[in-house]
Order: sequence, then C-alpha cells, then structure tokens
Amino acid sequence: MPSQIPAIVQDRVSPRAQEYLKKIEHFVETECIPADEVFEAQISKDPVLRWKSYPPVIDDLKKKARSQGLWNLFLSKTHYSEGAGFTNLEYGLMAEILGRSQTASEAMNCSAPDTGNMEVLAKYGNAAQKKQWLEPLLDGKIRSAFLMTERFAASSDAKNINMRMREDGSDLILNGTKWWSSGACDPRCAVYIVMCKSENNKSTEEFKQQSVVLVPANTPGVTVVRALSVFGYDDAPHGHAEVRFENVRVPKSNLVLGEGRGFEIIQGRLGPGRIHHCMRSIGAAERGLEYLIARVNDPARKTFGKSISEHGTIRTWIAESRIAIDSCRLVVLNAADKIDRGDAKSALKEIAMAKIMVPRTVCDVLDKAIQAHGAGGVCQDFPLARLYTGIRTLRIADGPDEVHLAQMGRNENSRAGQLISKLKQQEARREELFRVYKIEGRSHL
Amino acid sequence: MPSQIPAIVQDRVSPRAQEYLKKIEHFVETECIPADEVFEAQISKDPVLRWKSYPPVIDDLKKKARSQGLWNLFLSKTHYSEGAGFTNLEYGLMAEILGRSQTASEAMNCSAPDTGNMEVLAKYGNAAQKKQWLEPLLDGKIRSAFLMTERFAASSDAKNINMRMREDGSDLILNGTKWWSSGACDPRCAVYIVMCKSENNKSTEEFKQQSVVLVPANTPGVTVVRALSVFGYDDAPHGHAEVRFENVRVPKSNLVLGEGRGFEIIQGRLGPGRIHHCMRSIGAAERGLEYLIARVNDPARKTFGKSISEHGTIRTWIAESRIAIDSCRLVVLNAADKIDRGDAKSALKEIAMAKIMVPRTVCDVLDKAIQAHGAGGVCQDFPLARLYTGIRTLRIADGPDEVHLAQMGRNENSRAGQLISKLKQQEARREELFRVYKIEGRSHL
Amino acid sequence: MPSQIPAIVQDRVSPRAQEYLKKIEHFVETECIPADEVFEAQISKDPVLRWKSYPPVIDDLKKKARSQGLWNLFLSKTHYSEGAGFTNLEYGLMAEILGRSQTASEAMNCSAPDTGNMEVLAKYGNAAQKKQWLEPLLDGKIRSAFLMTERFAASSDAKNINMRMREDGSDLILNGTKWWSSGACDPRCAVYIVMCKSENNKSTEEFKQQSVVLVPANTPGVTVVRALSVFGYDDAPHGHAEVRFENVRVPKSNLVLGEGRGFEIIQGRLGPGRIHHCMRSIGAAERGLEYLIARVNDPARKTFGKSISEHGTIRTWIAESRIAIDSCRLVVLNAADKIDRGDAKSALKEIAMAKIMVPRTVCDVLDKAIQAHGAGGVCQDFPLARLYTGIRTLRIADGPDEVHLAQMGRNENSRAGQLISKLKQQEARREELFRVYKIEGRSHL
Amino acid sequence: MPSQIPAIVQDRVSPRAQEYLKKIEHFVETECIPADEVFEAQISKDPVLRWKSYPPVIDDLKKKARSQGLWNLFLSKTHYSEGAGFTNLEYGLMAEILGRSQTASEAMNCSAPDTGNMEVLAKYGNAAQKKQWLEPLLDGKIRSAFLMTERFAASSDAKNINMRMREDGSDLILNGTKWWSSGACDPRCAVYIVMCKSENNKSTEEFKQQSVVLVPANTPGVTVVRALSVFGYDDAPHGHAEVRFENVRVPKSNLVLGEGRGFEIIQGRLGPGRIHHCMRSIGAAERGLEYLIARVNDPARKTFGKSISEHGTIRTWIAESRIAIDSCRLVVLNAADKIDRGDAKSALKEIAMAKIMVPRTVCDVLDKAIQAHGAGGVCQDFPLARLYTGIRTLRIADGPDEVHLAQMGRNENSRAGQLISKLKQQEARREELFRVYKIEGRSHL
Repeated sequence: MPSQIPAIVQDRVSPRAQEYLKKIEHFVETECIPADEVFEAQISKDPVLRWKSYPPVIDDLKKKARSQGLWNLFLSKTHYSEGAGFTNLEYGLMAEILGRSQTASEAMNCSAPDTGNMEVLAKYGNAAQKKQWLEPLLDGKIRSAFLMTERFAASSDAKNINMRMREDGSDLILNGTKWWSSGACDPRCAVYIVMCKSENNKSTEEFKQQSVVLVPANTPGVTVVRALSVFGYDDAPHGHAEVRFENVRVPKSNLVLGEGRGFEIIQGRLGPGRIHHCMRSIGAAERGLEYLIARVNDPARKTFGKSISEHGTIRTWIAESRIAIDSCRLVVLNAADKIDRGDAKSALKEIAMAKIMVPRTVCDVLDKAIQAHGAGGVCQDFPLARLYTGIRTLRIADGPDEVHLAQMGRNENSRAGQLISKLKQQEARREELFRVYKIEGRSHL
Repeated sequence: MPSQIPAIVQDRVSPRAQEYLKKIEHFVETECIPADEVFEAQISKDPVLRWKSYPPVIDDLKKKARSQGLWNLFLSKTHYSEGAGFTNLEYGLMAEILGRSQTASEAMNCSAPDTGNMEVLAKYGNAAQKKQWLEPLLDGKIRSAFLMTERFAASSDAKNINMRMREDGSDLILNGTKWWSSGACDPRCAVYIVMCKSENNKSTEEFKQQSVVLVPANTPGVTVVRALSVFGYDDAPHGHAEVRFENVRVPKSNLVLGEGRGFEIIQGRLGPGRIHHCMRSIGAAERGLEYLIARVNDPARKTFGKSISEHGTIRTWIAESRIAIDSCRLVVLNAADKIDRGDAKSALKEIAMAKIMVPRTVCDVLDKAIQAHGAGGVCQDFPLARLYTGIRTLRIADGPDEVHLAQMGRNENSRAGQLISKLKQQEARREELFRVYKIEGRSHL
Repeated sequence: MPSQIPAIVQDRVSPRAQEYLKKIEHFVETECIPADEVFEAQISKDPVLRWKSYPPVIDDLKKKARSQGLWNLFLSKTHYSEGAGFTNLEYGLMAEILGRSQTASEAMNCSAPDTGNMEVLAKYGNAAQKKQWLEPLLDGKIRSAFLMTERFAASSDAKNINMRMREDGSDLILNGTKWWSSGACDPRCAVYIVMCKSENNKSTEEFKQQSVVLVPANTPGVTVVRALSVFGYDDAPHGHAEVRFENVRVPKSNLVLGEGRGFEIIQGRLGPGRIHHCMRSIGAAERGLEYLIARVNDPARKTFGKSISEHGTIRTWIAESRIAIDSCRLVVLNAADKIDRGDAKSALKEIAMAKIMVPRTVCDVLDKAIQAHGAGGVCQDFPLARLYTGIRTLRIADGPDEVHLAQMGRNENSRAGQLISKLKQQEARREELFRVYKIEGRSHL
Repeated sequence: MPSQIPAIVQDRVSPRAQEYLKKIEHFVETECIPADEVFEAQISKDPVLRWKSYPPVIDDLKKKARSQGLWNLFLSKTHYSEGAGFTNLEYGLMAEILGRSQTASEAMNCSAPDTGNMEVLAKYGNAAQKKQWLEPLLDGKIRSAFLMTERFAASSDAKNINMRMREDGSDLILNGTKWWSSGACDPRCAVYIVMCKSENNKSTEEFKQQSVVLVPANTPGVTVVRALSVFGYDDAPHGHAEVRFENVRVPKSNLVLGEGRGFEIIQGRLGPGRIHHCMRSIGAAERGLEYLIARVNDPARKTFGKSISEHGTIRTWIAESRIAIDSCRLVVLNAADKIDRGDAKSALKEIAMAKIMVPRTVCDVLDKAIQAHGAGGVCQDFPLARLYTGIRTLRIADGPDEVHLAQMGRNENSRAGQLISKLKQQEARREELFRVYKIEGRSHL
C-alpha cells in the first residue's frame, strides 16, 4: 500500500489504483521531475519566439506515459466512460503525485484547463462536438482554453459578464474581451470554450442569459492581445491570455447544450476541477517539504555550530507542515469521495472547504520552504518560488476565497432557525429538571 | 446515516454503530445538555462541602444511559473484550457527541480519567487487580485517578519523576507529591494509579526505573493537599488534586505488570485516550458553533440596522469554523482508524497530529463563539468560557504541544538521508536529459 | 532614564515624571506585587461573606502610596486640575507599571472604573455633584460603578439601551436592568453612574434620547441581583454585577449635564480610559514575559538534557513577545500623546488602534507564558491565567473589536474618492510621459 | 504638518524636514510614480540587451530631483557631513515616501545598495578611496554593489564565507564566487565592495579573518555569471548577480580600514540600511492599501448588489492594514531615533525589531491588496505582485528572520538571572506579609 494513502481510505483504493499509484510515482519522480528543467530550458528566451513553439521534451514524456497506460486518469469511472476507470478519490491520490512536477500533468494528459474542458464536452457536448474536439483532446493532439474571466467585470459574480453574443441567421457573432484565458497562448491551443451573454436576452431570468460557445482558435476576429504574468512568470508557452473578439462568427451548432444554458455548464464544470487543483497543490506542498528537509540537513550549511535541522523552530516548521499537508489531503479526499457517491452538486460544501483551505495552507508550507532556502528560495535554482505563485493564484481563480467563505457561511448559517428552536427545547427541559430537582431556576437565552 | 459522518468513513460505520449514534445524540441533546446546569446547581457553593458529595443528577443519568445500552462505549472491540463492541473510529464519532455536554461522558461511563485507567487495567492488570478495580469501574461504582504529573519536575520528560518507591519486605513504600491528579478530589475516587521511581534502581536503563502502582485512595499517608483551578474553575467535585504521599504502604501485588514496567504502561495508555479528548473537543467546537449561530441570529440583537449574522466578518467566522471542525474530525477519525488497523504504537504520528491540531483549532472556534456573545460569552450564562478553558488545558496535558511538535519534526526529519539521495538521483537524471537534449546544463544542489 | 521608556518619547517625559516612574516601579515591585496574594488570601472563601468586606491590605497600601505622593496620577494635567500633574503620555508609562500588579492601581487610586468616573465628574459634573461624589472618590473614600451594558440589548450600539427614565415632578424614576456593572458588588461602592433612555423622548434625534444619572448605591429599588464571572473568576469583592432598578427615585439634580446629553458624556469618557486599560495590559504582558523567562531558565526543569530556554521555539516566543510588547507600547503612547495635543475626540483613530491591537497581542503573549508553565500556568499558583482572562475581556468591553474594526475601516475607506482621483491623475501623467518618451501606451485602471 | 507624521514624533521633525517631506511627496506622487511604468517600458525585452543599458527616464528624474535639492537625503546629519542634513528619524519619514515608487529612491540618489556603500566609504574609507568612489557615488555618476552572500555557505553566519584573499607583494589576489550581488548587473556599476577571508589568517580570532576590499568592476578575472530572479522578476537592469572571481588582482590600498576589519565594517553598515528598507516597505504598504481602497470602491465592480468596500471582511482588512502600517511606522521611527541618539550599535534591539516585524507585516498588507484585485493583483497591470516579492526578500536579506529572532530571544533571555532573583525577593516579601497579616502561607516558585 503506497505510504501516502491515509488509513481511512485504504479500503477505498482498488488494487488496480494502487498499482497505478506506484507506476505514476515512479514515472513522476524519475522522468517528469528531472524533465522539468529541460522543459524550462527548451523555452526560448526570445520574447516572441517563446510563444511560437513548445518544448520537445513534452512529446517524449507523453509517449512514455501513454505507453504505460498513464493517460486520461482524471475522467472518473463513476461519471464518464471515456477515462481510465478510476474514482475521483483514486484520482485525487494520483493528481497529488502529478502536482509534484511541472510536466507530469500534461505528460499524462491530465492538465488544466484541458481536463475541465474535456469534462464539459463529455458531459454536455453533442456527438459532432465530441468528434471534433473531445476526441483529439483525449488523444492529446490539441489543447484548449476556457474563456470566462473579464478584466473590467467583477467576474466572481458571473452575471456581470460582458462578452456579447448575437444571432445572425444560422450564425452567432461574438464581441468582447476575455483575460486570464490560461493556455490560449499555446501554439497547440485549437479551441476556446467561451462564456458569453446574449445581446437580446430571450429569458428574463438572470441565470439564463449566458451561453457557452465553441470557437476554433483560428477563427477570424480572434486576437490574443497579450500574455498576463503571474508575479514575474509568464508561464510560456502555455500563458494566460487577454483575448479580443471582434465580430467573431461561428455557426449556431457551436453552442454547447443550447442558448442560455451557460450557468448550468460552468456549475457542472467546476466541481472535480477544483479537487484536481487542490490535490496537485498537496503534491506541491509535499515537494516543498522535501526540499525543506533536504536543505536543512545539508551538511555544508551548519550555522552557529549545528545543522539547521536541529534548530527547534525548523523542527516545528517540519511538523506543522506535515500536519498541514495531511489534514488537507483528508479534506480533499473526502470531497472527492462525496462526488463519487453522488455528484459535484451534492458535494458543494466539501468542495468549497477544500478550495478555501488547501491553497492558503499550501502557500504557507511553501513560504516556509522558501524561507529555509534563504535567497536561493526565491530564485530559479529551486522550484519553490514558482510553485508558491502558482498556488497563490488558486486563492483567486474560480472565485476568490472570500466569495466562497461568504457563501459557505450563509449556508451554514441557514441552520439558525433549527438551532434556536433546539436551544429553546433544551432550555424548557432544563427548567423542567430544575423543578424536578427543586432548584431555584433562571432562564437566560 | 447521521449527518455528521463524513463521506469518507461512511462505509466504516456499522449499522449498529449508526443506530447507537442516533440514540447517543438523542440522549445527549435531550437529557444530558439540559442536565448540565442541574449538575452545576447541585454542587454546593460552600468551599468545603462542594468536595464532599457529587450531584445526584449524575446517578439518574447513568441509570437512564445504561438502561439504553449506552455504557462503556470506549473500549474498542479490536483490542478489548470488556467494551460495547465498537471500533475506535466508531467510538470517535460517539465521543464527539459526548463532548457537547459536561455530564454525558460520565453518564455513559466514558469519562476521563477512568477510561484510560480501565484500559490500563484491562490491558495490563492481573486477574486480582481486574476483579478489585476494573469490575467496579466498568460498573460505574467507583472512580479513579492517574497520578503522573509533578509540580517541581519537567514532567513532559517522564524520566524526571521524583515520586519514590522502595521495597520493604513484601510491601512497597511510596513517598512524594503529585499534582494535577484529575478526579482525585471526587468522593467516589477509590483508587490511584501512581507512577513512581525505584529508589534503588535495579536497572541501569533510564526507561526501566519507573513503575506503576495501584494505591487505594484511603491508604494511610495519602493526603489530598489542595485542588488546583483551571482559569478560575475548580471543577468540583471532580477536581485536580495535589496529593502528598508520606510513607504510603501497599503490598507488592499492587504493582501493575511488575517493577520497571512503568514506561511501557503509560505509552500503552496514552493512545486512544488522546483520541477521546480530541473527539470530545470537536463536539465542544460544534456546540460552540451552534451557540455562535444562534446568537448572531437573535432578532433582539441587531446592530446598526442589521442582524449580526449578516455582517461579513461573522459569516467568515462561521465558514472558517466549519472548515476547522470538519478537518479536525477527519484527522481524528483517521488516527482512530489507524489504531483499529494495528495499535496505538503504529498510529503514533496520526495521534500526535490530532493531539497538536485539534485543541488549538477548537480553542480558536470557541474564542470566536465567546467573542460573538460579548460579555455574556465569558460568564456563567453560557458554557463557552468553561469549554474554552477545558480545551485549553489539552494543549498542555499529556505533554505540551511543543514536545509533540519537536518529536514529530524529528521523526519527519529522519527522511532527510533518503530525500537527499532521491534529489541527487533526480539531479543525475536531469544532467543526463540535458545531454540527450543538448542543453548546456548546470548543477545546483 | 527608566529603561522601558522608548527612545522616541524620551524628550516627552519630564524629570518629575521620570522620578515618579522610578518611585512607582519600586513601590509596585516591592510592595504591591508581594501584596497581590495577600489580597487574594484575605478574601473570604464563603460565597456570601466574600462580598461583604474587602481585604485590609488594600488600605495599608493606599496609605503608603499616598504618603509618597503616588495618588490620582491619571487625571492629565492638560485637561484636569484635580490630578497629579502628568500628561496622558507620562501616565501611560506609569499605568503600564500599575498593570503588573493586581493591587497597584487601587493602591494609587487609579483603578477602573473609578478613574473614568472621576473624569466624568470632573469634566461634566456641577459643583454639588463634585462636592458629593468627586471629592470622596479623589480621596479614595468611596468607590463607584458605571452602569451602561445591558443583557438583552446589543449594547455595542448604544441606541439600543433599554433602561427607562421618566420624570415625576422634580424627580426621575428609573426602571430596568444593567449587567457587567464592574465594581458594583464592592461594599464601598457608593454611587452608580447610570446611562438611561427617556421614556418620553423630548428629542426626535436618536442620539439625544440618552441621559446619565447619578444614583446613590443605597437608593431604594436598587438590587444587586448577582455577580457575573469572568471565565471562572468572580473578581470578589469588586465583582461584575447584574443590577436591577425598580422604580428607583432620584432628584433631577442627579442628572449629569442635563437630559439627553448621555452620548456626549460617554464619548468623552471612553478616550483616556481605553488608553489606561491598554497600558495596564502592556504591564501585564511584561509580567507574563518575566514569568516566562524565569520559568524556562529554572535549572530544575531541564528536558531532554537542556534548559527549556535553549529550545529555539522558546527563544522565538521570547523575541516575538518583546516585539509585540514594544510595538504595542508605542501605539498606546502615540494615542496618549495625540490626546495630550488635542482631546480624545481628535485621537479617535489612534485610540481605536490601541484598543484593537493591544488586548489581542497581550492575550497572545500571556497565552505563551501560560504554555511555558505547563499545567502550572492555568492554575492559581501563577498570576498568568487570571491576567489572561482579564485582558481577554478587553476585546469585548467598550464595544467588541469587530465594531471598532468596522468603524475604523469605514473611516479609512472614506479616502476612496480622493485616492481614485489621485490614481487617475497619475494615470494621466503616465500617458503624457508615454507620449514624451514615444512609448506605445496602455491604460489600465 | 504632513498627515503621516505620528503625533509622538511631531516635535522631532524640523521645519526644514517638514518642508522637504512635502516636496518629496509631491515629486514622488506626480513625477516618480507616473514614471515607474515608463522605466519598465524602456527596459528591452531582449534577454541580452535588457542588461546593456538603463532606462533614460531615470536620468531625467535625477536631474529634476537634484535641482530641487532632493538628493542624498539618507546620510544622517548626526553621523555624516556629506548628506542633506537630516536625522535618521526625519529620513525615515522621507524614505517611506520613496518606497511608494520604483524609481524614486534612485531619482534622489537614495537607493540600495549605494546608500549602504556610501555610508561604508564615508565612515571607513580613506581620503583616496573617498575621492575615487565616494565622490562619484554621491554625485550619482556611478553605481556600486556589495558582495557578501555566497551560494554554498550558510551566510547568515558570516564566519562561513569562502571567498579567498591572499597577498602577493603589494597586491591582493581574490578567488571565489558571490551571489545575490544586487546591482552588479547594472552597466553603471563601477565598484564592488567585497567581503573576503584571508587564506593565511594572521589572526586566530574567528572575527578577525575577514576583510573588505574595493574591486573595480572591470578588473580582469571578474565575471558576472548570471542574474538571479526574484519570483520570476529579474529586476533588470539592476539585477542580482552571481559573480565569479578568478585570480582577481587589486592593490593592497584597496583594503578598507585594513586586513581583518571586515566584521567591524559590515556591522557598521547594516544599521541604518535596515531602517531604510523597512521604511520604504511601509511606503509600499501604504501604496498597496491605496490600491486596495481604490479597487474595492470601483463602481464597476459591484458583486451581489453592493460595492466590495461594503463587505465586512474588506472593511476589516482595511482597518487591520491601517493598524499594521501605523504600528510598523512607530517601530521604525523609534529605531531611527535610537540611532540618532547614539549609534546603530546601541540600537541593535530596536533595529532587529523593525527588521523582523516590518517585512512580514507589509507582506501581509500587500497580500490582501493582491487578493482584493483578483487575477489583476498577481499580474503586471498593478505594482502589487512585484512589491510583494521585493518585500518578501527582506525576510531573508541581511540574515533571515529566524536568525534575528534567535539572537533577540537570546539577548532578552539574558535577563533571566536578574528576573529569577527579583521573583525570589518578591516571594520573600510576600512570606513576610503573610506573617504580618497572619495568613497561612505557601511558597510556590
């Protein structure tokens, strides 16, 4: 039984999943992590060229991974027939291992945003859409982007979206600008899944004015304006794009599910994807902790006569990081399991908990790892600073923590009526007991 | 399926345990919680009398609980034959419910320190010792205390114990003083389980000089000197005693396991007991959150025109408390499950994690609940301040957090050699890949 | 120059104040702190008698203090003629020393709530009121209470007050209940300063319906119903009372300032008093840190072969506590100085900052001190647990932290318009520079 | 009186300094901040060219600043004759304003590491060294670097330095590698101040084996190997260099102070420089808070029907940021004042406090500002992410927080003997009082 599987889920991981976990770990540790810097080195330093190709090492890794069956692990057997046949809980443990490496997720065709996009197409796409886009995505031939966020809207409230869609005969015409379209800079990105708002709403219901449209990347009128950076990283060649749509024309058949079904689709999309991010984050934290431990035990780095690992503060960091990581893992696996037992909707609370708790906790672990490395920790010699910034964005992506906290607080608060009533009943029973035992009572609620 | 059972353990809770959980919850919510203030009211305010008797309500609760089979739930079926037949994991869920009430644990004969003491006697006692002490304890006829901590020793390092034991023919003679002997003030406390150190050590090994001796409470030479308070609460009639031993004579047959086996016994004792404390703490946190929610929705307490529950800060408190509680529960259940699958020793890491994480997290939840109640929160009108102080002591009891963190950090740090070696192999593989791909390399570890 | 005076205020402390600081420190360290446990020991353990008298040691301390001129130090020379002639800043440094001891403030006639009440009387009382109440208070002959908080109202919003006042000829009749009336249990408490609301409001303005009335403690109809506890401490004989008013009749001449002036008075009252609490808290933190350092260097308490003080975690606690304390001191002294330069109203922001920052920080220092003492830390053998609970209530008293944070946030947020306008000007200037330097620009605000 | 001057220091800021503060603020807000993006835009995107020149706008700013007398403000009048005639306290307030902008410090010839280097030369340089290097530095003609940190040494303990220096006739020969040599990439950088260790130590004292040598940047054998990045930013053209020394030959007259005086020099160097960093950080935090407030009041960004600024969580962030910033300012100004009253050595504690407290607090403020901006916060459209990473490095630069905490803890802990003795005296006095008052005593320390 792989050591990172918590006792509490050991019966939930099939022998086949256990075998895969070992294979994945071996592949990630011996192939992907060593390839991470090759990947970096193969990206051109030239400001234009770095977006024109992608590192050759990635195709070699994909070939190796696929030959071992390490492919499309993310599509849960409970909900999809196209995947590798694992539960979300099992994939949770796998995704954690992928998260240790920059290249592993793509090597096994499990990288965002393609994973979420494939889920959308598998779940909501019609046969033609699946044929055209899902198949090459499952095959790792193309990549995709999800265009939701907008620069001048408070997009954590999706009703605020400004990208306009209007009908023109059998076509749709799109106008507007999206940003933080991750992956849209990649030369292999072939399709954009675009959230837009009908110019002439057929529905008066606020939640039925949004639609999801498939837009081929080379459609006239589409321009990748610029790449956004994450702290100082541009994440080339993947990138986070600002994309302008000027009278972009696509056939109506490119609508997913139909006009006005946009909300339904994004709500279906977000569930497992958030778990994927969270689980990968845990792998990032484990890697950070490994670096931390290796560093503080480096015999060349004694200070004031003793190994840094002997300092009590560092010991405490290590222990607290272990607690942080292990508790996050349980929270994520519990959410995954809840999805497996029903669907993402029934697991809203558990998913939100993971979404809020994991990134802030992992950022903290990585920050300690950085600190333990001194100046080395913030620079390119270690993966720590980059991992930190990647995880930091998860506190913002798919809605900032604060929106989720507010929502979760509101849901939890809805128990108020029932609780107040229970407290009153307990109060009444207490008064009764006071009479029985002849105690001079008091009431205080 | 009771709602507080996390998805991830639903298959691990037997139908019988589920049924018991419902019965326990009903009994605690409708009988024990209303009785908590009766219990308080039945304790005399007189500084002497308050230690001479115990509240009558407790016997009535015990009768009711036992008649429903709610008795001795804590002795896990995996390790003991004397209990109610549940796993530690199942009991973990039960103990949480007990932790909501001040009287529930004792009502079901599941209260500390008797639980740990019964475990010691069941595991290490001989037939005569079981007959004399375990049976009446299991029967709820007597109570017991565990005398370990000493005032002038750093007792988190058990080698420092000063209570002396010497042989005198077939007897043992004990001299010294213990404190924080919880329950030793209770008029029903009939036996002390005492950790002492041989005056003439037969062993030169530091860990074989301690012994555990059973001392009847009424043995001449034993004096309860005074009761210690916990943030102003004396916890009468249970109490936390300072106990003096002056030439206290007991037969050698009162030794548990034999001379020099003290370390073995306390190590066996601490495991599940820590889980019990932690799980009860989670119940305390749930109760705190219930009070918080009820309070902030009190229609009489609007400030600045809106219900306190509508303030964003409060919403965030509620959500963060929910996350805190649910993640703690998973950590504790995972530790319980690990014990079930092996023993407490194999679950050292998981137990330590729970021991460190849960009390600090629960203190934080309760502190927020206090704050939400304003001045009411710190006084006797709500159970919050008292719950807080009880949980606060758990960060000290059975070794302070810092000792556990240091130990956990040291254990985790022992991976250093293996990690450094792995990183070197990854480095070597990377250099190889750099050559394959003709990249000008660099080495940087 | 006494060592605890920060560099930055050294020029602001007069030679006379410096001399007093030395005398006060000597008196507190050699007389008051040793007397603290005498004070405790002289309080009867009997639940009724403990409220009927006060510890004799306090009168002896008062005599000694007054004979050295250590008396009424708190009334700032800037605003009152009745005091000892120091600025609020100078008194801030003095109050800190008083805060180290339980008895010191009262010994020097500087204890709450009398200090705030004397300020009210000095500032707003008429000649007769001063004669009757201020003089004996300044003389230390009587004590007083301020009755503001109510049990069933969200009293952080003072408009919610329920205590009713109606006119009856030349008299006023009061009905209602107050709680958390600190000091009202003391047998020497002779006068209550009561906030009430006119039954028939003469004013339609919400802030002109409250009045402050002086009620002699022995007025018929006044009943001290019970004492509230702070965690488990009842703070006898001072106490925190619930006080019931049933048709309590006083002459109209007992109104302070006049009907409807209540808001004005409490706003004037709260300023320096909050500074007093904060400064005393800093003294409490210093004392906690002293105990912490003494404990971890106790040669009898080595663990795992070394002094506890050598553990890195403890070293960090000590350093972080020093930083916490010193930064709080600066914040409080800055607020005091702002009051000295104008009045409490002009220092609202600075006072609020101190009120929010100091108690939470000091609680944290004391919590660490408790933890370093193990079980000893929570019990009566050290002043730590009690100090903690006292400071903890300051996060609630005079309005909970959250109300002050919300108010401060709103005030700070009122800069928004000006800031947005400044950013726009900077944007415009940047566009201009882009043109000058022939850079292809972009606009992004 | 400029509004950001705390009450407590208002008497310490001369009218001339006040006038300068206004001029500086105006210059920074209207010239430097708008120029910050011009500066960025003028840096070539080409990976080689970006290090070959520096943005022209900087020379224009320097001219403007100097013409207004805003030049060399940092050299305190207390300790240097070469500066603009302000105290460290006054400069502290100025440096804060400089910290709001990326270009302001250099524009006024107050940027690190030149400031610290000028202090070294002014304090320890001989006439020839001053002539050759200090004059052009004061004149803003050249720039400089300080080469201390090494990649493979735990350089927080300076005894570990590996850069070797040996004598060869009247020359010195240097061999080794430094990294994090900030500014060494700048094409204007003309001189390196290098810390090295004598190959044949003349002294057996560990602290007398280090020397400081001036090395012209173009000396044969010196190679800038590469630039380190800070969370993805390369900080071109300034940069953080790895610099290799291979048989680098300079005359012995390039030694500062003389062989073996290295420790003395760095200790003198670090004091005010740390204050400069801290104060600039406070300006960065103020700017972050300005952006935060502007953002949450953006009328285009309402969520769920209300302005983001109306959410309680955001209000709390704003208030807590204000408290954080204002308390940091007081701590830094107090340290500056302590230096003014003596020297950096006498202010070690105060400097360390600022060094530890300020960066972590400012990181927290900036992190909140980032979060409030959503995805915008982490990218190039706002200065926030970059400011964050710059401040984050301060927790590492000049020794990591943990080293300072450990040192501060040790110093504070040195009071232990005196405290234990005081507590014993208080204990003795208490026992005496117990006898006087006829109380049955107890002793408990």
